[in-house]
Amino acid sequence: MFEAAEPPQTLSKEQYDAVLPGLRIAMLEAQQRLRKADFSVVVLINGADGGGKSETVNALHEWFDGRYLRSETYGPPTEEERAHPELWRYWLWLPRAGRIGVFSGSWYAKPLADRVAGKLSDLELAERTARINGFERTLADGGTLFIKLWFHLGKKAQRRRLKALAKDESTRYRVTKQDWKNHERYDRVVGASEQLISQTSTAHAPWHVIDGEDSRHRNVAAARLILDAMTERLNHARTPPPAARLPPIPDPETALDRLDLTQSLGKHDYETRIAQLQARLNQLVRKLHKRDKSAILVFEGADAAGKGGAIRRITWALDSRTYRVIPISAPTDEERAHHYLWRFWRHLPRRGRLTIFDRSWYGRVLVERVEGFAREAEWQRAYQEINDFERELLRSGVVLIKFWLQISLEEQARRFDARATDPAKRYKITPEDYRNREQANQYEAAAAEMIGRCSPPDAPFTLVEANDKHFARVKVLETVCQRLEAAFRS
Amino acid sequence: MFEAAEPPQTLSKEQYDAVLPGLRIAMLEAQQRLRKADFSVVVLINGADGGGKSETVNALHEWFDGRYLRSETYGPPTEEERAHPELWRYWLWLPRAGRIGVFSGSWYAKPLADRVAGKLSDLELAERTARINGFERTLADGGTLFIKLWFHLGKKAQRRRLKALAKDESTRYRVTKQDWKNHERYDRVVGASEQLISQTSTAHAPWHVIDGEDSRHRNVAAARLILDAMTERLNHARTPPPAARLPPIPDPETALDRLDLTQSLGKHDYETRIAQLQARLNQLVRKLHKRDKSAILVFEGADAAGKGGAIRRITWALDSRTYRVIPISAPTDEERAHHYLWRFWRHLPRRGRLTIFDRSWYGRVLVERVEGFAREAEWQRAYQEINDFERELLRSGVVLIKFWLQISLEEQARRFDARATDPAKRYKITPEDYRNREQANQYEAAAAEMIGRCSPPDAPFTLVEANDKHFARVKVLETVCQRLEAAFRS
Repeated sequence: MFEAAEPPQTLSKEQYDAVLPGLRIAMLEAQQRLRKADFSVVVLINGADGGGKSETVNALHEWFDGRYLRSETYGPPTEEERAHPELWRYWLWLPRAGRIGVFSGSWYAKPLADRVAGKLSDLELAERTARINGFERTLADGGTLFIKLWFHLGKKAQRRRLKALAKDESTRYRVTKQDWKNHERYDRVVGASEQLISQTSTAHAPWHVIDGEDSRHRNVAAARLILDAMTERLNHARTPPPAARLPPIPDPETALDRLDLTQSLGKHDYETRIAQLQARLNQLVRKLHKRDKSAILVFEGADAAGKGGAIRRITWALDSRTYRVIPISAPTDEERAHHYLWRFWRHLPRRGRLTIFDRSWYGRVLVERVEGFAREAEWQRAYQEINDFERELLRSGVVLIKFWLQISLEEQARRFDARATDPAKRYKITPEDYRNREQANQYEAAAAEMIGRCSPPDAPFTLVEANDKHFARVKVLETVCQRLEAAFRS
Repeated sequence: MFEAAEPPQTLSKEQYDAVLPGLRIAMLEAQQRLRKADFSVVVLINGADGGGKSETVNALHEWFDGRYLRSETYGPPTEEERAHPELWRYWLWLPRAGRIGVFSGSWYAKPLADRVAGKLSDLELAERTARINGFERTLADGGTLFIKLWFHLGKKAQRRRLKALAKDESTRYRVTKQDWKNHERYDRVVGASEQLISQTSTAHAPWHVIDGEDSRHRNVAAARLILDAMTERLNHARTPPPAARLPPIPDPETALDRLDLTQSLGKHDYETRIAQLQARLNQLVRKLHKRDKSAILVFEGADAAGKGGAIRRITWALDSRTYRVIPISAPTDEERAHHYLWRFWRHLPRRGRLTIFDRSWYGRVLVERVEGFAREAEWQRAYQEINDFERELLRSGVVLIKFWLQISLEEQARRFDARATDPAKRYKITPEDYRNREQANQYEAAAAEMIGRCSPPDAPFTLVEANDKHFARVKVLETVCQRLEAAFRS
């Protein structure tokens, strides 16, 4: 595929001076329009050593209005980055709507290096690229415009360029031993690059190969590609991503219907068992650090189902340095300007820690679905997006434990009444809660479908019969203990 | 001072049941009012081992509405935290206006442990507490309401409590060897605690000592103190902090007036020197990592003074993995809801890295002063706050290099005209820029005072004669190189 970029393409000084002024004006105008748009632009810059990646980043900074463009160049991950899922350090840096983010040495750098070093089999490479495609698709479907640029250098061109840099005293420092080593295995690098590119050049995020030798040509070509893609998107509302083709799931409501909500536990039994479970849980959570794992607990359930009470029975057992509770309410404006998953990425625990989400990303297929905050195609797509997201968590050593707390409508009504008459609990109840009750059937159907679609074997929803608080809390703690023990055994 | 907390104070089950309902309602109501207020509440919980810190954190979570309260408990710092200024991990966690943040094991834990271990002389302790007082004053003056709680245990009470915890199978895990070790040197711990408390109990952030043995008494007393402080502040607008008593500075305007703006550099000389400087700079920035230092460059100057151009001459020389440019424009709503320094704390570089601020925290005493966005007392106070903030940076190994780029009004007019007629630069110029010109005298006076007040020997402003871009860029690069070299020598 690199043939297209050869023979070397160049732009003379005259040609360059002729096109640049108009190009820059167009770029600035497009960027002005982008600022009011509802999508962000992600530019990836990868390619050959000596291919001019950082020079092009600099040119983009100069030609665009730097206030609304951020770039990040990635080297080896820091300790903190290694203590999080592999993609975490990219997620956090994703630009908000209206902005441009330039990623140099992006999530493609590591698979390429691993492949060149012979550490990735064909199968492993295919798995890696499938994950990358899923990640990019999630963002693209959410509106992100991808422009992926690969700077190519012919073998001779690379040698010429490295030699020229090494000859000039003021640029000698740029040429490293690693550069020469990579040059020696040029064919392997090119082969691996071609594989990577062909497996990740998708409709929603295609690659563009640019000849990197001539800096004028390269910078102008990169800028033009970005400009054209932005203009296209600004002028033509994007075709909404196709509706998800959701596989059928076995009658999703039965699981919830079948729950025996009459199960209960007497006070004495409860107190004995909860104390035992808390001691056991405390030990287990302490082990997270040694086992190089982290844990995420997700609590979903109807209003007044007892999420907060169950969470407190967990946190009371723990050293407060090891955990964090993240209650999910309305997003801030920074959060609203990003992909809906971004605000959860912000709060992922590092290795050794536990994070408890009191409501979570499942809001997308629950409240946002029922209340119409998300369009049908959006929430339908979300099942897959969430499954992908959780798979990244699992891969990085997260023990993911998800609960759905189920109460009957009668019990919910009882609790609402109790709240309404207890001044210390009245704040918990709002007119919205009563409205939600009217849509109980829709919430129930949404919950059932969520449970059916988002319960892979390694991250199932645990359904908790929650009419009796004692029973529910013991079941929650027991599940957490069992799941942690199972994770430590494996 | 701990005598006040002895003999042990208790609350019977009956007393507790009698006060709790009313207390909780009052807490929830105060929290509701707080949500609309323009200040945040910071609760610090420190004190004796076994004094019940984490139980009280749990009680606060239960009694307040957990959606608007966050708590963070601090253990030993992570690698990432150690790569930043010592207070960084607290700064980031500070609550936004309308919220409560509970810090358990706060910035007092380390000085206490160091003092008990004999690692802090009287003088060093005094220096540490002075810095803490400055930090708290900065936040308090910005509106933060501090409630600092110290849980005390008598020696016998501590033994009783540790024994009781160790005896019960379900709580045995809570008692560590370190707890017993601290118990053995009880008197030393108490002595150090008393010193720390007395040196940091200030008008803007006083300590409250609570007897920690009886959990009912302790939790209720803590909640009451928080409630009372919140209520007091909610009912009575706070007395604005006293105006800063600014020391006189030697005729501040002369330094700027004396600059010889006619200095210039021919194209050939410029190109030769800039190339040499860039090579030198590249080597120096690579050394940051080895020297365990980071660097922060601050660029201030009038509109069109050439900040962006100077910054690009620096970044072109660097490996883009090592630096980040942070252009400062309007704050986001998350930023607006925090102390004005918070949005800069977010972007501090870790060790080994360089961050360039294109405009900075000095906006407080420049644009915010001149345009009236900050009240007089606020910007007057800011000189000290900024000096304190920068001292924390310097202490943590940051090389701080600050520039003021000075151009004449005539040169600025020329550049504005050039921008207005160049379509590729037109975006840089707004009606605001022309307005700013009308206030040129005020901006100049503000700049002069800023330079006079915020130029300590280890972080002076470098004044750059910027009428000639070549001269200015060479001076900037040369200064950065010299300052880095000096820092590496020391």
